[in-house]
Amino acid sequence: MGNSYGKIFRITTFGESHGPAIGVIIDGCPAGLAIDETFIQSELGRRKPGQSRITTQRKEEDTVRILSGVFEGVSTGMPIAMVIENQDQRSKDYSHIADTFRPSHADYTYQAKYGLRDYRGGGRSSARETAARVAAGAVAKLLLKESGISIQAYVSQVGEIKAPPFTDLDLSKTEDNIVRCPDPATAEKMISLIDQVRLGRDTIGGIVTCVILETPAGLGEPVFDKLHAELGKAMRGINAVKGFEYGSGFGGIKMRGSRHNDVFYKDGDRIRTKTNYSGGIQGGISNGEPIYFNVAFKPVATIMQDQESVDKEGNPVTVSGKGRHDPCVVPRAVPIVESMAALVIADFLLQAKTSQAETPKVREQL
Amino acid sequence: MGNSYGKIFRITTFGESHGPAIGVIIDGCPAGLAIDETFIQSELGRRKPGQSRITTQRKEEDTVRILSGVFEGVSTGMPIAMVIENQDQRSKDYSHIADTFRPSHADYTYQAKYGLRDYRGGGRSSARETAARVAAGAVAKLLLKESGISIQAYVSQVGEIKAPPFTDLDLSKTEDNIVRCPDPATAEKMISLIDQVRLGRDTIGGIVTCVILETPAGLGEPVFDKLHAELGKAMRGINAVKGFEYGSGFGGIKMRGSRHNDVFYKDGDRIRTKTNYSGGIQGGISNGEPIYFNVAFKPVATIMQDQESVDKEGNPVTVSGKGRHDPCVVPRAVPIVESMAALVIADFLLQAKTSQAETPKVREQL
Amino acid sequence: MGNSYGKIFRITTFGESHGPAIGVIIDGCPAGLAIDETFIQSELGRRKPGQSRITTQRKEEDTVRILSGVFEGVSTGMPIAMVIENQDQRSKDYSHIADTFRPSHADYTYQAKYGLRDYRGGGRSSARETAARVAAGAVAKLLLKESGISIQAYVSQVGEIKAPPFTDLDLSKTEDNIVRCPDPATAEKMISLIDQVRLGRDTIGGIVTCVILETPAGLGEPVFDKLHAELGKAMRGINAVKGFEYGSGFGGIKMRGSRHNDVFYKDGDRIRTKTNYSGGIQGGISNGEPIYFNVAFKPVATIMQDQESVDKEGNPVTVSGKGRHDPCVVPRAVPIVESMAALVIADFLLQAKTSQAETPKVREQL
Amino acid sequence: MGNSYGKIFRITTFGESHGPAIGVIIDGCPAGLAIDETFIQSELGRRKPGQSRITTQRKEEDTVRILSGVFEGVSTGMPIAMVIENQDQRSKDYSHIADTFRPSHADYTYQAKYGLRDYRGGGRSSARETAARVAAGAVAKLLLKESGISIQAYVSQVGEIKAPPFTDLDLSKTEDNIVRCPDPATAEKMISLIDQVRLGRDTIGGIVTCVILETPAGLGEPVFDKLHAELGKAMRGINAVKGFEYGSGFGGIKMRGSRHNDVFYKDGDRIRTKTNYSGGIQGGISNGEPIYFNVAFKPVATIMQDQESVDKEGNPVTVSGKGRHDPCVVPRAVPIVESMAALVIADFLLQAKTSQAETPKVREQL
Repeated sequence: MGNSYGKIFRITTFGESHGPAIGVIIDGCPAGLAIDETFIQSELGRRKPGQSRITTQRKEEDTVRILSGVFEGVSTGMPIAMVIENQDQRSKDYSHIADTFRPSHADYTYQAKYGLRDYRGGGRSSARETAARVAAGAVAKLLLKESGISIQAYVSQVGEIKAPPFTDLDLSKTEDNIVRCPDPATAEKMISLIDQVRLGRDTIGGIVTCVILETPAGLGEPVFDKLHAELGKAMRGINAVKGFEYGSGFGGIKMRGSRHNDVFYKDGDRIRTKTNYSGGIQGGISNGEPIYFNVAFKPVATIMQDQESVDKEGNPVTVSGKGRHDPCVVPRAVPIVESMAALVIADFLLQAKTSQAETPKVREQL
Repeated sequence: MGNSYGKIFRITTFGESHGPAIGVIIDGCPAGLAIDETFIQSELGRRKPGQSRITTQRKEEDTVRILSGVFEGVSTGMPIAMVIENQDQRSKDYSHIADTFRPSHADYTYQAKYGLRDYRGGGRSSARETAARVAAGAVAKLLLKESGISIQAYVSQVGEIKAPPFTDLDLSKTEDNIVRCPDPATAEKMISLIDQVRLGRDTIGGIVTCVILETPAGLGEPVFDKLHAELGKAMRGINAVKGFEYGSGFGGIKMRGSRHNDVFYKDGDRIRTKTNYSGGIQGGISNGEPIYFNVAFKPVATIMQDQESVDKEGNPVTVSGKGRHDPCVVPRAVPIVESMAALVIADFLLQAKTSQAETPKVREQL
Repeated sequence: MGNSYGKIFRITTFGESHGPAIGVIIDGCPAGLAIDETFIQSELGRRKPGQSRITTQRKEEDTVRILSGVFEGVSTGMPIAMVIENQDQRSKDYSHIADTFRPSHADYTYQAKYGLRDYRGGGRSSARETAARVAAGAVAKLLLKESGISIQAYVSQVGEIKAPPFTDLDLSKTEDNIVRCPDPATAEKMISLIDQVRLGRDTIGGIVTCVILETPAGLGEPVFDKLHAELGKAMRGINAVKGFEYGSGFGGIKMRGSRHNDVFYKDGDRIRTKTNYSGGIQGGISNGEPIYFNVAFKPVATIMQDQESVDKEGNPVTVSGKGRHDPCVVPRAVPIVESMAALVIADFLLQAKTSQAETPKVREQL
Repeated sequence: MGNSYGKIFRITTFGESHGPAIGVIIDGCPAGLAIDETFIQSELGRRKPGQSRITTQRKEEDTVRILSGVFEGVSTGMPIAMVIENQDQRSKDYSHIADTFRPSHADYTYQAKYGLRDYRGGGRSSARETAARVAAGAVAKLLLKESGISIQAYVSQVGEIKAPPFTDLDLSKTEDNIVRCPDPATAEKMISLIDQVRLGRDTIGGIVTCVILETPAGLGEPVFDKLHAELGKAMRGINAVKGFEYGSGFGGIKMRGSRHNDVFYKDGDRIRTKTNYSGGIQGGISNGEPIYFNVAFKPVATIMQDQESVDKEGNPVTVSGKGRHDPCVVPRAVPIVESMAALVIADFLLQAKTSQAETPKVREQL
């Protein structure tokens, strides 16, 4: 339960931080899509640990192996299984937490729910699981590319340091620095702050902003499965996420409706809006304007300091900071946010094929 | 597609603002639950329009009729269908929007997606649909009550006016005023602001905060169906919602991990945390502490002013403000937020029955 | 749980035999389909009790009321809710079974599973529930009609009396007699047999054969959701069904592969098969040939005779035959079989829209 | 789409006959179950090719590797991924079918549906995929064993040769011979027939009967997800299955209700039935009596003879019989039938935990 996502383009992930391997099955990928393995691998490279001094120094090559669903480089419509072997399984590092609950981790809640847990590196609650999502998200991106849709995330805030609004940024510069903020000046400040936090053996939170361009109008479903409801759920499924807002978000509260409303106008053949407080989504359905949203990440719970806690019997213990962890997760979260967004949009793109009762164009006889 | 919610305790709603009726089927409600119709009706009363001068003056009694699934006052395990007839179907009020797209409504996106739409009162995109959720949520609350779980929402912000944190409030006072803010002084200011906005023929946004008490540890699923991911999706499915945060939320970004981490300690027989920045949820699973979250609502799109827009052909038109609408939706959103929260918790409570492989206690022979 | 069917074209039914009403919500019906209410009502007429002397004499008009999802005669893409009020609620007829378990009914199993049951007329286990499926099936038939697909079921066996194979029959004559067998001579014998069984206060079983014509190749999914797997599940969900076979079915066991294989040939532009032991389905996917299958119904459990049984405490009791029941269900099962088949095919028709990664043709901007 | 099965105990399989590997993810296996890898491997041994002279001579060791979800020999509640590498990938054997459609295989329908196909060994339509189900079914069996439920299938018919009814057989003898029929005399005849068919370079069909003992009353859901509806769907998802019947099945058609009804009586503390034409299922829910059903398999389509067919353009071609195939699939189908049955029962066992609103026993605080 809880390890699958999507209705038509549906993924199921598996694997623990220190088990033999992690992976994913994509069920529902349409047949006939060129599967570019190099691209999948490059997306995994954007997420992998040890990329720079501001990320965890754990070393994982994260080499993906496709086991099914692709024939002669093209998807066959069959489930696409992808597996990433875990190379760096230093289980010894984690033996000290077998009987203790690390503060603000999932140790206690997993123990309470399941009566036991794989405590090695956090087991399944480790963010290592997200590598499987990035592999699946890369396939979703390939599907979206065929429809001209692009997804670009970047770091817009670390601690109190904020980047300008996305409309003032050149998002093509996101990958130019290690913090993944397209504004060079802000990036420099963010990197300094993370360095400082890291040296203080502490952690800090931040925001990833995501922008989706060239989405056709008509994606999303009314009522419960609104486009932003699914985007929010997908983001909130990422470790350490505490908040989600789209369009005007929390800031829109203070506005009056007369200003907040996005006025329609005709722009050539298209109907567009003059402002975009709606964030590209109205009534839960895309309107063709850019979709944008913010995802808030807490400071990660693993810190390189001694902390008070309790063991399984409730006895006081000290949890010491060991292992290799990120002082700030947002730089590596960028490709994860993009991947989850791609999975949501790909799924709605397929769902949208059934909204209207035009004569169904099922396979003709040969 | 998109009109169902939940895995085990699963609801499907139907109905348009100005159609014959709206309603809901609950599938998966366990047998043997006393169904208190008076309570369901009273919950609908909290949501219904025309309650006070700061809500829409549309009159709907919202009388619910249970068609199935209840026998001699008790649930039978069969689907519970509930129907609310629409009484106040002034379709004429809406004829002026048949061919035009109201700014920041779902008119354009429904038209784009479906090729046609029931334009009367916004059709299914109207918040009228939420009455069905409140009826279903009332049944979920009855189930939760048996487990000692309580859910209380209130208005914590209107425009820039904010209430103190929930830990400083007496939530039993929420229903004492028409704006549903348990702090009387703040409530008064909120009401004044809404009155002022209403007289200005405008609208304003706000925040509903929800607190869930006495949840057992162990609710929620890892990875995609985290407890806060589902709560967020459920909230985001409510009309006009633009943001969701739980625990430390967006504010937690600026904190260091060393302060943000919630330290465990033993309190009698229970393991608890000294602080609760986690918002009662760790790794996507409840830890037994109070769950709390904020839901941001935009200023509603319907304003009593003339606005520019376009018609189906893209020609410029003026949309005039007519009908009866809420200057601020948050007071009436309180029971809707509670209902969606109850549906999420009820579903996870049932899911949690299958987490451990204790000898399954299926019905014994008589 | 268990009251929904379908993935994209998805129905959820509700209602008990002697509750206020029964009904159904269709979620996922594409927008733009003309909804012919007269046709829906006529389909319900084919299923309704009291049609002839060989069916139960219970009187129900089964008038359907559409509550949502249809605007100006056309589906809007929103859920279509349909309700049928129960008129003939003679609850007194059933009071004698409140504490006893009728042989081969669902009384005992419902009691065991749920700890209580609505015993009036069998509650939800009554075949009355199937009226909701027929209403939904009628909408599915309207959708299929647009694609040129037709579904025709008929009674092919009652007791030992069998009709010739469907390829030798004129299925347009099915409705010409009260037993719904298109072969007049066989029909006469069947009617005589049912009359005889009825006078003996007994019941008898039979077979409904269903033929689906003009299905395009490509419907169905590999592995678990094969076309015949879903057809079989859909049929088996109908009360009193004990067996399902398609194509060569149980008879094919005795054949050699060399004879059983259907040889391909080219017929004009189409690839067809010379024989059709495959029943129009190969590898779980339609091949464009006629789909045909048999559904076996047991003799219904309600007989007009005294029978031994036990009550809730296990004490011996006599169950006397009362009420108004069918001596043989197959004539009235014909429209139910067709309806369930239509629901399966409609769902696969929509699913098939997403099998190939052709550039998705989502709604264009207006 | 279509590669997952189950609601709570849910499997998703992947893999093609001649791809790198096949496998399965089980999501929803409760935590705390001892996972006996030797047992899983032994179940795979019962299904594997090359077991005897009457099965295909293809050699696959089918060694399973568990990648996740098991820690120190016990399930953790996390997804259990199992992978079986394909060793014997003689792709050259299949090159001759790249452009031709083998009669009564899935070649044509996959091509029609997906526009391309992995033609090597039938790709995903090969029965090789069922190895993944057997691995998952073995885990389900371990779960059922804890509840005292046992599942035993056997070959009851090959061609016209039938075994006596299961109540006259000692099912513990099923594995004593290579055809898996517990009646030695019948087994000998079946083996002779299969040998004769094999030498004739042909194939023949048969029936697998399955018996489930010690199921508690209360498994299954009303209406669409009846216990026998799911069992039937699960069986029908197995390659080459053409028919399914339970209890009295097709034979029950000819009986009168007065004889077909199963009379209840009290046997010690239990309520039982004197006869069992219901096959252990009433109203779609188990009643505690033995569940039994028949699954009809057609003669497999691959024969060692030349056959007429067409290629993709519809040109006539000859398909020659090559490769290594089973003259009769039923002996190897026995563990597959058991596995699918185990998956269905395990899922309903978990679902049944939520049928009644007894105070939910969610994890207590430690």
